[in-house]
Amino acid sequence: MTNLHGDEAHPAHIGLPTYLHLPYARDAQELKESGADVAILGAPVDMGVVARPGARFGPRAIREASYFTASRAPLYHLGLDLNPLDHVKVVDFGDANCPPSSLELSHEAVRQKVTEALGAGTIPVILGGDHSITLPSATAVAEHYGIGNVGIVHFDAHADTGHSGSGGVLISHGSPMRRLIESGAVPGKNFIQLGLRGYWPPKETFVWMQEQGMRWHLMSEFESRGFEPVLRDAIAEALDGPDYLYLSVDIDVADPGFAPGTGTPEPGGLTSGELLQAVRRIVSSDVTLVAMDVVEVAPPYDGPGQITAQLAHRVVMEAISGLAKKRADAGE
Amino acid sequence: MTNLHGDEAHPAHIGLPTYLHLPYARDAQELKESGADVAILGAPVDMGVVARPGARFGPRAIREASYFTASRAPLYHLGLDLNPLDHVKVVDFGDANCPPSSLELSHEAVRQKVTEALGAGTIPVILGGDHSITLPSATAVAEHYGIGNVGIVHFDAHADTGHSGSGGVLISHGSPMRRLIESGAVPGKNFIQLGLRGYWPPKETFVWMQEQGMRWHLMSEFESRGFEPVLRDAIAEALDGPDYLYLSVDIDVADPGFAPGTGTPEPGGLTSGELLQAVRRIVSSDVTLVAMDVVEVAPPYDGPGQITAQLAHRVVMEAISGLAKKRADAGE
Amino acid sequence: MTNLHGDEAHPAHIGLPTYLHLPYARDAQELKESGADVAILGAPVDMGVVARPGARFGPRAIREASYFTASRAPLYHLGLDLNPLDHVKVVDFGDANCPPSSLELSHEAVRQKVTEALGAGTIPVILGGDHSITLPSATAVAEHYGIGNVGIVHFDAHADTGHSGSGGVLISHGSPMRRLIESGAVPGKNFIQLGLRGYWPPKETFVWMQEQGMRWHLMSEFESRGFEPVLRDAIAEALDGPDYLYLSVDIDVADPGFAPGTGTPEPGGLTSGELLQAVRRIVSSDVTLVAMDVVEVAPPYDGPGQITAQLAHRVVMEAISGLAKKRADAGE
Amino acid sequence: MTNLHGDEAHPAHIGLPTYLHLPYARDAQELKESGADVAILGAPVDMGVVARPGARFGPRAIREASYFTASRAPLYHLGLDLNPLDHVKVVDFGDANCPPSSLELSHEAVRQKVTEALGAGTIPVILGGDHSITLPSATAVAEHYGIGNVGIVHFDAHADTGHSGSGGVLISHGSPMRRLIESGAVPGKNFIQLGLRGYWPPKETFVWMQEQGMRWHLMSEFESRGFEPVLRDAIAEALDGPDYLYLSVDIDVADPGFAPGTGTPEPGGLTSGELLQAVRRIVSSDVTLVAMDVVEVAPPYDGPGQITAQLAHRVVMEAISGLAKKRADAGE
Amino acid sequence: MTNLHGDEAHPAHIGLPTYLHLPYARDAQELKESGADVAILGAPVDMGVVARPGARFGPRAIREASYFTASRAPLYHLGLDLNPLDHVKVVDFGDANCPPSSLELSHEAVRQKVTEALGAGTIPVILGGDHSITLPSATAVAEHYGIGNVGIVHFDAHADTGHSGSGGVLISHGSPMRRLIESGAVPGKNFIQLGLRGYWPPKETFVWMQEQGMRWHLMSEFESRGFEPVLRDAIAEALDGPDYLYLSVDIDVADPGFAPGTGTPEPGGLTSGELLQAVRRIVSSDVTLVAMDVVEVAPPYDGPGQITAQLAHRVVMEAISGLAKKRADAGE
Amino acid sequence: MTNLHGDEAHPAHIGLPTYLHLPYARDAQELKESGADVAILGAPVDMGVVARPGARFGPRAIREASYFTASRAPLYHLGLDLNPLDHVKVVDFGDANCPPSSLELSHEAVRQKVTEALGAGTIPVILGGDHSITLPSATAVAEHYGIGNVGIVHFDAHADTGHSGSGGVLISHGSPMRRLIESGAVPGKNFIQLGLRGYWPPKETFVWMQEQGMRWHLMSEFESRGFEPVLRDAIAEALDGPDYLYLSVDIDVADPGFAPGTGTPEPGGLTSGELLQAVRRIVSSDVTLVAMDVVEVAPPYDGPGQITAQLAHRVVMEAISGLAKKRADAGE
Repeated sequence: MTNLHGDEAHPAHIGLPTYLHLPYARDAQELKESGADVAILGAPVDMGVVARPGARFGPRAIREASYFTASRAPLYHLGLDLNPLDHVKVVDFGDANCPPSSLELSHEAVRQKVTEALGAGTIPVILGGDHSITLPSATAVAEHYGIGNVGIVHFDAHADTGHSGSGGVLISHGSPMRRLIESGAVPGKNFIQLGLRGYWPPKETFVWMQEQGMRWHLMSEFESRGFEPVLRDAIAEALDGPDYLYLSVDIDVADPGFAPGTGTPEPGGLTSGELLQAVRRIVSSDVTLVAMDVVEVAPPYDGPGQITAQLAHRVVMEAISGLAKKRADAGE
Repeated sequence: MTNLHGDEAHPAHIGLPTYLHLPYARDAQELKESGADVAILGAPVDMGVVARPGARFGPRAIREASYFTASRAPLYHLGLDLNPLDHVKVVDFGDANCPPSSLELSHEAVRQKVTEALGAGTIPVILGGDHSITLPSATAVAEHYGIGNVGIVHFDAHADTGHSGSGGVLISHGSPMRRLIESGAVPGKNFIQLGLRGYWPPKETFVWMQEQGMRWHLMSEFESRGFEPVLRDAIAEALDGPDYLYLSVDIDVADPGFAPGTGTPEPGGLTSGELLQAVRRIVSSDVTLVAMDVVEVAPPYDGPGQITAQLAHRVVMEAISGLAKKRADAGE
Repeated sequence: MTNLHGDEAHPAHIGLPTYLHLPYARDAQELKESGADVAILGAPVDMGVVARPGARFGPRAIREASYFTASRAPLYHLGLDLNPLDHVKVVDFGDANCPPSSLELSHEAVRQKVTEALGAGTIPVILGGDHSITLPSATAVAEHYGIGNVGIVHFDAHADTGHSGSGGVLISHGSPMRRLIESGAVPGKNFIQLGLRGYWPPKETFVWMQEQGMRWHLMSEFESRGFEPVLRDAIAEALDGPDYLYLSVDIDVADPGFAPGTGTPEPGGLTSGELLQAVRRIVSSDVTLVAMDVVEVAPPYDGPGQITAQLAHRVVMEAISGLAKKRADAGE
Repeated sequence: MTNLHGDEAHPAHIGLPTYLHLPYARDAQELKESGADVAILGAPVDMGVVARPGARFGPRAIREASYFTASRAPLYHLGLDLNPLDHVKVVDFGDANCPPSSLELSHEAVRQKVTEALGAGTIPVILGGDHSITLPSATAVAEHYGIGNVGIVHFDAHADTGHSGSGGVLISHGSPMRRLIESGAVPGKNFIQLGLRGYWPPKETFVWMQEQGMRWHLMSEFESRGFEPVLRDAIAEALDGPDYLYLSVDIDVADPGFAPGTGTPEPGGLTSGELLQAVRRIVSSDVTLVAMDVVEVAPPYDGPGQITAQLAHRVVMEAISGLAKKRADAGE
Repeated sequence: MTNLHGDEAHPAHIGLPTYLHLPYARDAQELKESGADVAILGAPVDMGVVARPGARFGPRAIREASYFTASRAPLYHLGLDLNPLDHVKVVDFGDANCPPSSLELSHEAVRQKVTEALGAGTIPVILGGDHSITLPSATAVAEHYGIGNVGIVHFDAHADTGHSGSGGVLISHGSPMRRLIESGAVPGKNFIQLGLRGYWPPKETFVWMQEQGMRWHLMSEFESRGFEPVLRDAIAEALDGPDYLYLSVDIDVADPGFAPGTGTPEPGGLTSGELLQAVRRIVSSDVTLVAMDVVEVAPPYDGPGQITAQLAHRVVMEAISGLAKKRADAGE
Repeated sequence: MTNLHGDEAHPAHIGLPTYLHLPYARDAQELKESGADVAILGAPVDMGVVARPGARFGPRAIREASYFTASRAPLYHLGLDLNPLDHVKVVDFGDANCPPSSLELSHEAVRQKVTEALGAGTIPVILGGDHSITLPSATAVAEHYGIGNVGIVHFDAHADTGHSGSGGVLISHGSPMRRLIESGAVPGKNFIQLGLRGYWPPKETFVWMQEQGMRWHLMSEFESRGFEPVLRDAIAEALDGPDYLYLSVDIDVADPGFAPGTGTPEPGGLTSGELLQAVRRIVSSDVTLVAMDVVEVAPPYDGPGQITAQLAHRVVMEAISGLAKKRADAGE
């Protein structure tokens, strides 16, 4: 593990942009030796998108979005009254080396990188990249923790369970969840979707989803039932069988007002505050989070304020903080 | 009617950008023969604006905003559980040919295009353009359905009932509603405004509005009374006499956070979710919608995410979906 | 006092951009003779920022943001049913002449300009600039009204009470509130912070804050207790001793969705509507507002819609309107 | 005449943005009393554009573009070895109060403002605005100096001599030069165009131009013959009869790489250096410049660097410097 | 063939954006019947890019870039003194239906579309898309006109002759020219490259290029020898054997100052004027142009002025004009 | 020295953005052991700017600008026919840790970092940052190589020799060259400026410059005499006495069309091609380059194409290539 920033405090715009300016593990060996609990890793892929590409720049933008760093001052979560890094050791594990122009090779690179992070005993937090990367990523996690033993809570405006895209293309950001269920990596009944809205996918896809036992909670359900009951249900449903939880956050679950920098924005979504609370709530509850991804941040559409990258960065922070809270409560 | 896209599915960025990649009617004859229920048509005018021009690019931007198209997969409204296009036939009727530099001729072109759409038996959905186009558009509708027989529900941050602008200019986006009432096209008491806020128009204008019997519901009334009662009142007031409803949505009724790409943004407005729900709620209730406009989308101020155009696109979708819901419920 | 715009109405983009196109006071003498109640003045400084600079352009952007002006039509506050300018005389007092490259000299210029505005019998409304300017500004106010006799209500995502920044720098936008308390200008117990959230400052800073008797209300407290009780507490706490109120609004208290154009955006904040209501609520309550600042608007990050500058402009408008409401109620 | 900036030096982003932070004349009387040689005045109009509007924001953007001001340090023209302001007194005369939504009233306001500037004995330098404003502006100049006694040198990618626009509209930015010749204000043979290129206007328009005796020099002629001979010819042709020269610079004569922020960019144009030299060359030669305009700067299309506004600002500076050079050489 | 715009003149922002608002051929049959000489068709593909994606939006942006249209007024090429459309019939043939996420299927769609255009007797002008599309496009042309019987003049900053990309990927925008030569579609010695500069490809690739007999002219050769001799050589070399010419223009051959909206900008390139002249010069000389592509316009990086799309549009215009010139000279 | 990227090739957007993805030296010791010839280091400072800040983000933007990396393929300079990295070992030495809000401490950090790079036997290439950093940087170089023994060739639109800024501020980006001469670090007569133009500094400053024996070559001299003679003179003048050369390139020496992303753009400058050639020409001539800076890249003003950062990146590449050429010619 390599501390690239020396002992002095650095503002975020100075030095190499590892996540929070935390130490960097160049390979699986370094990661393992670091004793890290969480490995931040990028999946710079966007060949899976149907509409606006650019998510390949997501990992770097998310790392660079924050104005605070671990090196400048001790972090302190105002709501939870703790420094998350006191309880959770986080290391930057770099990016999967995804070859442009090949979605297949890129997925293979992601699968391998996530496998390495798992092998090093960490919880991988994957920064996308388009949502197609959940296919290799969750596959790697399921292979590590046992096929069928991992449930997924999936925040998204879209179900991403399409059979295929234009031209019959099977691998894209419109279909990863279907591929995961078809392969058996994740049981349909433990694949729980939150925040769906809009006009896609078609009815027939929802029929298929129902046949797989998938469960979903539309954006409107949050409004009618309130957040807490829906989140509670989602957790119970995801872990109705499996021991482990994978959390997948497509940033477009947030309303475009809060997350304009994404490929397929869908008006009518969560506020940033709701999303952050939901993530913290889930991670800090009685679940075993084994991996997480935050995807579909597309910086070219984010405007000069780069608020989508900021939000994605805080989604990761809240997950880390949720983990920290549980450990702190457990005296760790 | 011309299907410009062939039988194959097309992603939204491929081919000519008709609305949802739906068929295109080049003239009134084609529109009539198409049997369309709804005609989408653009009113690319922005000479009426007081502040930031650019709404002339609104119609094209709204058509191009969507990442989904009718040609790529069957649409499916997740909340309403139907494909709106199974119940409502929608055709793109192109743009009114509005000559730049002449607001008068542009208005004449809009009036004529809307008249043609009405003559073809469709519900015209007009994509603005600045709000001055509601003057020719609603005039055409009132002439078609009977002067005094059309009520208007008008979402906006601004009343647009000014007497005149700088220099005594009578026709602009600050005064169309006054002209409509003065001409008698729409009865004052059936002109209902929703979402007003801010510092304009002056008191004397509100006095005039009151004298006309106009009724309005400030943004703060939504907050104090809740959405449902206000919407119910608005519908009842608009149709207190008239048989037909015209819905006019100025995108600046939404908060600038959700709709930055507009000429005169006014902080403190609706969320995107609230606006979409309100439109669907009104259209799917027991009213006879005969026309609708969505105006004041100004792409040069929208940023690279173009979220304002996206929101306007969904406003149209929710109206179509509301129509579809009623028809589906009626077994049509 | 100089009326730069003549008698004719002007749209906002025409003529010199004084605030609302109101008269301009070139110096303290003119300001005094104008009989102004409120003096708008800019503090174009951004050398205090840790992250993204650009707030030096804030004062001009805020003045230019509005599409309405006092010269074009009488203003009318729809919610309060009055023209705020009928009750409160507002004059533009220009900018403090802040030399770039010297934060010290810039602060001195701000302190002097605010002192002049106070000496002319006005309530200065300072348009930042970064938040470091609250140090000279509030110092000037405390010196004018009596050290210890001014309480501060401070809206912000960040406490700005850091001991020092990188390299031990004492003066920046991360520490002004600490300097104010250390100097004794403002009593710790009357320094009330609203909207704090995120991961900064560190725990030790909060310990120091507590030792000073400072009181704060996290963003989450708004959510759990509701707005009204928290605002009521904040006012009571700020004026628990002092006679006078200083209101400081860091625009980043709003969520980045509503205020992307700022240096250190923190997701999970207030909506624009909430912020505007809170400001009006505080100012129109039974307090003696003696000064106000609106800071951290950084136009280069605001995107083409410039919605952050718009929001800041309305924050000032709501404060003026709140003052007007009180005077109107008192028959003034 | 009002000095708005006091005696202290001000950086350009501080204080009210008069041109170079020079004194401001609120009306014709003040202008006259100031003894100004040159009056800078804005014509914030863009209803004449066929394509991308936004030039109404040109005058303010041009004034704000410069990083240097007369108040911060004595200006010094490095190439000419003089301070242009030592030889030419420049005053900011504000903007014509052009009512949005009426091109006719806007033109009337421009005509009147230019007439006032001429009446005060100044050389008006008009900041556009779209090119339609040359119609009222040059008309006012011709009326002042004698119909037929003013020649025009006109830099532009486009001839702007269209008969009419879409819908038969006679007044727009595509036709002002035709109107000027038709009205007799400027003799066709003394209307000289430089930099024309592209695909417009149609052949028939060039036939008409030829019939009027108009003379033009295509962009390609600069390349084949070199700059100096073409400029020499242009000056001779413009003043072949008239005593006075009006210089009209459409910023789109520059290549879009140097001037992206304009309504109808045409690739293949002048470099910024060529344009600046040409303007200085013409003004400093043996001509009597009586008025000048710089038009078609449309800030919404200029990007964050605002380089088009910068270039337009320097075009004005070079004209002033050319005047200064002549006076300096003459011992004035 | 379908005229989508009626008989009235339309400004460019009104109506469906076919190229120049020319008629639209929905399929090969319509194209053939139209008697078109030139078919404009889009290849909306960008999965081949190594760096910044976005060229999938190129075809639409190029069509929308122009402020002039054939429908608004007769076009007139000022330099050539003709209306190019009087001599060359141009029809818009729409876009190849390229499925996102599959570069292979996208290439197949391009190949087929180009083949159809050739079969209809037209000169296809392909709007990219990334440069990988020259592989299917030029293959289709070679298959139509005879393998080995087509030479290519290729303007580009980059040779695009890489063996493979990261991960050994063979198909990308870095290698199409190599694939074309390897397949035998185009003889190496007739593949002529112009404008190369920078630091790529590596030496070994140039060795391979030399072995194939490829010839290239660095950007610096234009500077040292002048344009005319280099262009003359390039034409002679390309047609040293073959009868037919394919012209491929990567917009990044222009300097980033003139073409910022591209994926891999390389400073030190052609001016817009040089590029336009070179294209006209080549096409109007004694060659038989059978196809052309203009690629690598990536609108998300183009800024609000969209000058890169404008330049690409004019590159097409100059080619059409060059064809027209030859025909006019031949009395056609 | 740390290779952060492993052995595999990486596209530029993947992994940590060291310069060209070259190895990283965390401290002076690592740098020394690396045997580097050139050390790339950032000076992320912009408190010295008078106008638009943002250059603190320059070092990161320049590193990220390139689409090619040393790790993806061997670099190859097409004009010089060599891989510059075969002859010159380049290492990324990170950034000086410049505390925001203190220009003094920032300068101290730069001075120290440059001193370390020199102590490690490298040629430091400093990425600015505003131009004020040439003061600490060139001071460190002069101290290392002998006061008076270093000449400077300085490309810039501005002389940067002001006595002081607003408020009498002595240290800013307007005065570093004066401070360097006043301190004696660099002899006035060996301080050679190239590309000056515009309206600043004032005459009196040029008088002072002349008194110091400074020599300068205006932009217009390039045009009148041609590049080669002026460059030859500049080199001779800079080394008329000193043994060593420091090259300082303010990116605003390029025209704003090629470098919009800078704080004080001045139209009428160099093309990108001219700048690149000039740098290569100087470095590859018979001089001993001991340090170089490239300053004033301000990414917030650069637009989405980020062409200014690209140009600055290539300026560094050309310097490295010039060094390599000399070594290659010398058989090294």
